[in-house]
Amino acid sequence: MALPVETFFLHPDAQGTLQSQIQQMIAQGILSGRFQRGEKLPSTRKLALHLGVSRITVTIAYTELLANDYLTSKGRSGYYVSDNAPVPPAFTPSQVGPDAVDWTRAIGQRFSGGDMPRKPADWGGYRYPFIYGQADPELFDHANWRLCALKALGQKDFTALTTDYYDQDDPQLIEFIARHTLSRRGITARPEQILITLGAQNALWLTTQVLLTQRRRAALEDPCYHALRDILSQSRCHVTPVRVDADGMPPDAIPPNTDVIFTTPSHQCPTTNTMPMHRRHELLERAAEMDALIVEDDYEFEMSFLKSPSPALKSLDTDGRVIYVGSFSKSLFPGLRLGYLVGSEPFIREARALRASVLRHPPGHVQRTAAYFLSLGHHDALIRRMGSALHDRREVMSAAIAAHGLQIAGQGAYGGSSFWMRAADGVDTQELARRLQARGVLIEPGHAFFSGPSRSRNYYRLAYSSIPAGRIADGVALIAEEMRALSDLGLNAVGNWP
Amino acid sequence: MALPVETFFLHPDAQGTLQSQIQQMIAQGILSGRFQRGEKLPSTRKLALHLGVSRITVTIAYTELLANDYLTSKGRSGYYVSDNAPVPPAFTPSQVGPDAVDWTRAIGQRFSGGDMPRKPADWGGYRYPFIYGQADPELFDHANWRLCALKALGQKDFTALTTDYYDQDDPQLIEFIARHTLSRRGITARPEQILITLGAQNALWLTTQVLLTQRRRAALEDPCYHALRDILSQSRCHVTPVRVDADGMPPDAIPPNTDVIFTTPSHQCPTTNTMPMHRRHELLERAAEMDALIVEDDYEFEMSFLKSPSPALKSLDTDGRVIYVGSFSKSLFPGLRLGYLVGSEPFIREARALRASVLRHPPGHVQRTAAYFLSLGHHDALIRRMGSALHDRREVMSAAIAAHGLQIAGQGAYGGSSFWMRAADGVDTQELARRLQARGVLIEPGHAFFSGPSRSRNYYRLAYSSIPAGRIADGVALIAEEMRALSDLGLNAVGNWP
Repeated sequence: MALPVETFFLHPDAQGTLQSQIQQMIAQGILSGRFQRGEKLPSTRKLALHLGVSRITVTIAYTELLANDYLTSKGRSGYYVSDNAPVPPAFTPSQVGPDAVDWTRAIGQRFSGGDMPRKPADWGGYRYPFIYGQADPELFDHANWRLCALKALGQKDFTALTTDYYDQDDPQLIEFIARHTLSRRGITARPEQILITLGAQNALWLTTQVLLTQRRRAALEDPCYHALRDILSQSRCHVTPVRVDADGMPPDAIPPNTDVIFTTPSHQCPTTNTMPMHRRHELLERAAEMDALIVEDDYEFEMSFLKSPSPALKSLDTDGRVIYVGSFSKSLFPGLRLGYLVGSEPFIREARALRASVLRHPPGHVQRTAAYFLSLGHHDALIRRMGSALHDRREVMSAAIAAHGLQIAGQGAYGGSSFWMRAADGVDTQELARRLQARGVLIEPGHAFFSGPSRSRNYYRLAYSSIPAGRIADGVALIAEEMRALSDLGLNAVGNWP
Repeated sequence: MALPVETFFLHPDAQGTLQSQIQQMIAQGILSGRFQRGEKLPSTRKLALHLGVSRITVTIAYTELLANDYLTSKGRSGYYVSDNAPVPPAFTPSQVGPDAVDWTRAIGQRFSGGDMPRKPADWGGYRYPFIYGQADPELFDHANWRLCALKALGQKDFTALTTDYYDQDDPQLIEFIARHTLSRRGITARPEQILITLGAQNALWLTTQVLLTQRRRAALEDPCYHALRDILSQSRCHVTPVRVDADGMPPDAIPPNTDVIFTTPSHQCPTTNTMPMHRRHELLERAAEMDALIVEDDYEFEMSFLKSPSPALKSLDTDGRVIYVGSFSKSLFPGLRLGYLVGSEPFIREARALRASVLRHPPGHVQRTAAYFLSLGHHDALIRRMGSALHDRREVMSAAIAAHGLQIAGQGAYGGSSFWMRAADGVDTQELARRLQARGVLIEPGHAFFSGPSRSRNYYRLAYSSIPAGRIADGVALIAEEMRALSDLGLNAVGNWP
């Protein structure tokens, strides 16, 4: 590859002759790793013109660099970074000294330090990845996605999609969601009541910013999706964790001065329990009593392969009290970053204005590709295929778990893609996960899902969305083996529900 | 299209016989516009199974709907929404009554009401669009973009890009930016010092959240990019607008207790003035004196077609004091939503954690497509082509402006894509814009760029990035004509620089 002439600058404060400055500039480029072996330098004429120096100056500098083996010349075809040029150090500090800025003082607000459970970036290379929330490339309909992306790259669509939408969304995607996706959940919404987001996480974040302040109180499930807890703690509102039971969040346990209730009625995250209809009504009544709002994260409703999903909580809401969060991360893929918010217009208006300020709008091409994939029926077909694969895997996994005497703490009655598991009381599942990783098994320790100081350490999540059915039994056997090794410490102390 | 069976729900609280409930459910679907003419209903067998009712109940409901002309039957092929079905009203309220929620109270923080200048969504249909910041589809290299997108949709890339990156970016894009894009600006940065953002706006937003609090003070240029002012006012920090002169932001005018200085040295926005080298040094010294940070928004540096751009302010920074904001919105297209932040590691770490909380990461496919487009040299070729087209347009426009005696208040010495214009003192350019729009001419009134209560109302921006050269002269003539009509009010009062 040729190094573009625009890459070359003479530093305005530099010392020395022009010729030595040029030499130094090129040598530094090579030493810092910016210019790599075999790359072609600009011609002496071009570089001289660009830098505003005489051509002979550049030629002498190049000749010096040739002599020092930084460069090599290939006759008339020009100058190249030599194969014998000094090798840049593996670690190249960009500044010689440390920053003059005291970053401890300069940073006004800290956001790092949340306890998102980390999966290894190369999880795909592990033999037994019982990890949650990643797409299985074997199940995804890559060919049709590609065709839809191509369609959205056609001249007419493309021209429409390259422009700045300001605060608007792709009308085709909005229409499909309104007419088809939401109607499956029993929800009726107009386009002004829908906002496309960068995944469910972005939807939850926007909602929190609009509804909560330092003076307001949120209730959230315990255990719950850890990123939601981080989002709420960053917003500095008061947070009450409400311990869930086998039916999800118990309405009576929500404190009376709550402003916003966050819940996952379809599949409680992470226990996978489904909230029964009578409790949904109770929850709506409780919220009406307190004049609180409810944020319903309806993740994974598409994965109901055992029976039809119950309608969303939002479909029972006549007050405009429920804000609904949907996502395509599970049913398409998480790298897509596409979700949506449904709520009353005054709320959506503020969320839209905030989104415009933070990022304007999700990329147009991504929205249109999804709109095609959905409206051509590929999404429905994909869900059926995934449902059938997940069904098989779940049966294999159920059998393996029973065979090895591992304890299930929660499993979705409608389907889902994971089991919520419980180890003996003395077992730290973080330690278990560490030992298993060394043996090619990835599990998710449950610790990060719990709130407060006395978090349970003996839960873990086993997902079957990324592991082929044929490997499940062996993986579960390894988990059982390591579990036995670990629980020699406290095996007898099997307590009650958290 | 067939209506999927999942779209059908019996409301758990519904009254009446099952048969009448089914009838009502379908009629409501048609009346609300969810089910449209010619769409196929599920078979009686399928719907009965899904709802858990007997097949005869569904059959009777369908027969009733046939009789009422909601449905039509096509022999053995099934039931369809009839062409004679009642037409849904144009406006379909989703709820019968108003919300029970008092949204004035429920919304904790308001974000709507910023004064972003609105372009009509159908700006492409206007004959003389002197608007800023939209891509010109005639100049964009659509064919190669499409090829790069296809490459990024190939099996291997796609599998890598569908996974959840958590807080990470596409390493290929980061590497290209570090090695090529930044080196053209004289900046050396390691991957840990770079963060991909959803456009420059997202970069500015993240920076503001990390660095500013209610107790800190920001200095920003006046006039400036209006969205930045909205972002800062939402963060509730103290803001001092600093009036720019012909050399950009004057360092002496920045108050001594400033924590963060926002500046656009390459092309001041919107005046397009370039900050000379001596002032850049003065600005860095001033910032060091106060121990303030500088946020450099280096937008549009690629559009330097008149002479090579000066190196970025960041390239002169040895303290780690400058945070650099780059964007591909101008040189690729704004609907892409792709930009980047460059800064010291402690800062990037917090910005990355905040981004993870807000949206995790920009979509992988968008990042990889851009990485290919850049690394295959298409971006460089595009910039050359755009530079040459913008050069032509600028000359035509310069001549037309001079011929009609319109007054230029600022024009980039290096290039750019707009002129900053001044009307006579009595002229309100918002009124001017309104009159011109009726004649097919779009201009940008300057009012929204200024800070404070006594904003100048007689400036406007004329961009040439979206209008073909052949239409510029006629468009400028129309502007001059409407200007004369308006300035009959206060033509003599031409004052000094704002």
